[in-house]
Amino acid sequence: MKTLQVDLGERSYPIYIGAGLLDRAECLTRHVPASRIAIVTNETVAPLYLAKLRAHVASFQPLEVILPDGEQYKTLEVLNRIFDALLAARCDRRTTLVALGGGVIGDMAGFAAACYQRGVPFIQVPTTLLGQVDSSVGGKTGVNHPLGKNMIGAFYQPRAVIIDTDTLKTLPDRELSAGLAEVIKYGLIRDPEFFTWLESNMDKLLARDTEALSFAIHRSCRNKAEVVAADERESGVRAILNLGHTFGHAIETGLGYGSWLHGEAIAAGMVMAADLSQRLRWLPAADVTRIEKLILRARLPVRAPGTLAPARFLELMAVDKKVMDGRLRLVLLKRLGEAVVTADYPRAQLEATLASRREAA
Amino acid sequence: MKTLQVDLGERSYPIYIGAGLLDRAECLTRHVPASRIAIVTNETVAPLYLAKLRAHVASFQPLEVILPDGEQYKTLEVLNRIFDALLAARCDRRTTLVALGGGVIGDMAGFAAACYQRGVPFIQVPTTLLGQVDSSVGGKTGVNHPLGKNMIGAFYQPRAVIIDTDTLKTLPDRELSAGLAEVIKYGLIRDPEFFTWLESNMDKLLARDTEALSFAIHRSCRNKAEVVAADERESGVRAILNLGHTFGHAIETGLGYGSWLHGEAIAAGMVMAADLSQRLRWLPAADVTRIEKLILRARLPVRAPGTLAPARFLELMAVDKKVMDGRLRLVLLKRLGEAVVTADYPRAQLEATLASRREAA
Repeated sequence: MKTLQVDLGERSYPIYIGAGLLDRAECLTRHVPASRIAIVTNETVAPLYLAKLRAHVASFQPLEVILPDGEQYKTLEVLNRIFDALLAARCDRRTTLVALGGGVIGDMAGFAAACYQRGVPFIQVPTTLLGQVDSSVGGKTGVNHPLGKNMIGAFYQPRAVIIDTDTLKTLPDRELSAGLAEVIKYGLIRDPEFFTWLESNMDKLLARDTEALSFAIHRSCRNKAEVVAADERESGVRAILNLGHTFGHAIETGLGYGSWLHGEAIAAGMVMAADLSQRLRWLPAADVTRIEKLILRARLPVRAPGTLAPARFLELMAVDKKVMDGRLRLVLLKRLGEAVVTADYPRAQLEATLASRREAA
Repeated sequence: MKTLQVDLGERSYPIYIGAGLLDRAECLTRHVPASRIAIVTNETVAPLYLAKLRAHVASFQPLEVILPDGEQYKTLEVLNRIFDALLAARCDRRTTLVALGGGVIGDMAGFAAACYQRGVPFIQVPTTLLGQVDSSVGGKTGVNHPLGKNMIGAFYQPRAVIIDTDTLKTLPDRELSAGLAEVIKYGLIRDPEFFTWLESNMDKLLARDTEALSFAIHRSCRNKAEVVAADERESGVRAILNLGHTFGHAIETGLGYGSWLHGEAIAAGMVMAADLSQRLRWLPAADVTRIEKLILRARLPVRAPGTLAPARFLELMAVDKKVMDGRLRLVLLKRLGEAVVTADYPRAQLEATLASRREAA
């Protein structure tokens, strides 16, 4: 087992990474302050891992809340089901919420923990690659709104993140690829050496080589922990973690949540950001090709869906959280391995990217 | 104008108290970081004060969100209408929410500000006595759940609290009395001198004497600011601010939100807490009589509704946020002017209080 620390003063917490951690209950229980936990999971993950987790925490009177699976259920209404269950079971302010599942479960259970009785402890147990390398670390929680992704939420840090790499054995191929999009992101925004490593090791990752996956998860979490420690509430540098996300969120909202996976949408979004960076003469064409090639090898889309017209795409991008006083800021690449946040690009160039980087309708 | 400071490090903020402050726009605008504000108010307050506020902030492109009036609308569903409006108008992360109204509006607008894009600035402009002396100060925000009051929310501090005492001129008598319940509370929990002052000045307050009201608001806010500064997130002493609230919340939830006003419910609740304190031999009978008498003079109820059976009352109390590991903690009075939080009372005594301090069914 490896341990990383997310350094946030009194809100600091460990990330445990290793095979079989679901069987090592003390990773979890040492972060539970009182006698009660509530496990939030979904219909897909519950049959795979809930019994195992339950057996190890039996003395904590575990309440179980099982939600439907999918981004389309990341809503205020479904969030309320967590509150219903907690209140019906009279869970008090010291109940610890445990998120067992992917990014959607982590975001919702974390937001529920932030709001229930104005805040209860919570622990992330991500079971998807995307959850493990990205969404479980850093305290971003929330739900979607029909008009925009992750528009309602809180910054609320977990007490611990427990990554059992064995859970990836049951992950569908499509979800593995979606997680790789966020892995590739770290290479692009701040870790060019890791990008090169990914070019050499993509086949191993797709073959679920344990060692390669472990390395990629650890390296991704380390990158994320460093950025979050520098800027917890995204007043500055943290925004670079959103490379491809403004494009990606427009795709997710435009197609309806749950159509493309989040990782798929941001994969195409990263290629679009690279394309625009090239138009600004920051990135050579050869690097855009390298990026596109690696994303393709990860079995991810490199173009926006043809059904989404560029005008509609622009409209959807305009509700992004990075909009400031009416100007849309984007995360772009100064070079491969260095991201910047900027509103300083010609609108015509953005339109050219939208027109050229989409599938035929 | 008088100014008090709520001392919370980087989250410190001023409370401005004075007549005509709604006409002094700079109190508000100096706390608005960007060019946009969104005013959240209700159908009762809007016709009285919205035009005035709007005129003073016209350059901030004010968006207006008008909600129905009443505790029964303090729900996740109605909260979502605020998000709908903010997103439809493409309000960004630097939009400042302004809560113009009573406690319900302040709690909801504050919670919306805590969650919208994971946090935007907000300013409290309370227009009821209860909002001015209690709910607008201290950062407790949230909504009700059918199973419990204020069960979903956040600690989220405003940038400023602007109390225009002129707004009390339009306050219905019943709401004035409801606010006086919280005023009396400060005397009971930590300010016996203020309690004595209230005994001498209750008639002036009911006659809406400007000077008396100003003094009572300032003294109440000072008490609240001191307690909040000592314990922002209610891990200790702040809980004394909940004198009467565990009983009161049971009344509100049991009768259905909006039946009794919050202040009415906690008025009866404070008498019940005093009654139980007497049974524990902490409070002499004469003090219980003094308390009951002052509350009656404020035209407030001193008994629980007869329609709520004691068994149901106990059940409702059990979902209180102060429950810890299954034990219900209550705020009781060690003496008139000193509150304690304790789970150390015989259940039979609590039952005796519930049985004796209720109206005939």
